[in-house]
Amino acid sequence: MRTSNMLEQLMEALRCLPGVGPKSAQRMAFHLLQRDRSGGVKLADALSQAMTEVGHCGECRTFTENDVCHICSNPKRQQTGQICVVESPADIAAVEATGQYSGLYFVLMGHLSPLDGIGPSDIGLDKLDFRLQEGEITEVILATNPTVEGEATAQYIAELCHIHQVNASRIAHGVPVGGELDLVDGTTLSHSLLGRHKL
Amino acid sequence: MRTSNMLEQLMEALRCLPGVGPKSAQRMAFHLLQRDRSGGVKLADALSQAMTEVGHCGECRTFTENDVCHICSNPKRQQTGQICVVESPADIAAVEATGQYSGLYFVLMGHLSPLDGIGPSDIGLDKLDFRLQEGEITEVILATNPTVEGEATAQYIAELCHIHQVNASRIAHGVPVGGELDLVDGTTLSHSLLGRHKL
Repeated sequence: MRTSNMLEQLMEALRCLPGVGPKSAQRMAFHLLQRDRSGGVKLADALSQAMTEVGHCGECRTFTENDVCHICSNPKRQQTGQICVVESPADIAAVEATGQYSGLYFVLMGHLSPLDGIGPSDIGLDKLDFRLQEGEITEVILATNPTVEGEATAQYIAELCHIHQVNASRIAHGVPVGGELDLVDGTTLSHSLLGRHKL
Repeated sequence: MRTSNMLEQLMEALRCLPGVGPKSAQRMAFHLLQRDRSGGVKLADALSQAMTEVGHCGECRTFTENDVCHICSNPKRQQTGQICVVESPADIAAVEATGQYSGLYFVLMGHLSPLDGIGPSDIGLDKLDFRLQEGEITEVILATNPTVEGEATAQYIAELCHIHQVNASRIAHGVPVGGELDLVDGTTLSHSLLGRHKL
């Protein structure tokens, strides 16, 4: 359907958002034009600003518009000597939401994947290696995803830690809290058996 | 979670889109930053342009950045003397997609709803009334939604047409093509019985 060029361009542009097809792009465009133009303008400003100015933290590689993110620049967190390695900035959000962790982070922005030509330096492990050398880090918590690539990446980083005599630990895999045993897949259950601890 | 202010602002702004909650806003923001910055910039431009410049067609009230939309300014369509009344610009898209209609449109941008204080002038019926007076329109096709308000609005416009001696017709309601009788609701089925035609 040819409506107005600008409207078409907007619908087309909206489809760059994940999970947005032609229909929902149309719904979004009409919604903004009909009911929330100010919101649309705000979104446009926020977008152009973020796309141009948000870069990566010099320390942990997460997204920030500053040279160093607010977590890395927090002295209290630096004192812990702990660094939690995650695959994406969204994982930081998840860990932070638990309120259980008060150390630093290191974001790989992916995982080792030789088939896709993604090597250690592509996920910033040279940077991590350097930080381990400095000797300020006492423990590395490996919180990569429990996928094949995630596990392989965790293994690789664990070896790095051993070279620098830094403690490396892997987050526990097991039965989700509130989950039912008979609904949990075999691999997870076997993990939870292997990872059992004394009471 | 406090990440970067810009990132927070972007996630907050993304929630003005219909059907986008905190989680999907986060997913969208990270996706754009990580994988599709150029797309994000394009979207920002398309948004700000559309929000500021897209207005309503002087003839049919649909969205357009011009004074008159490309349908109203099409002489071939003007010659038909037909005008299809719909509730929203999205409905034009739907009717156009059928390829069955080659006349003009009139978009109400809503429907009569006395309880919400939405009267005839609020949905541009004064404008439609004026166009019917001009005498260029020979048939009005009422394609408002088959809801209570939609039917009431259609009735109201039909009476307008009778005053100006213009033919008014309502789109047929009945069993959807490809639908199964036993799955169709009673009201629709009774409509399809009342609206039966000779073979």
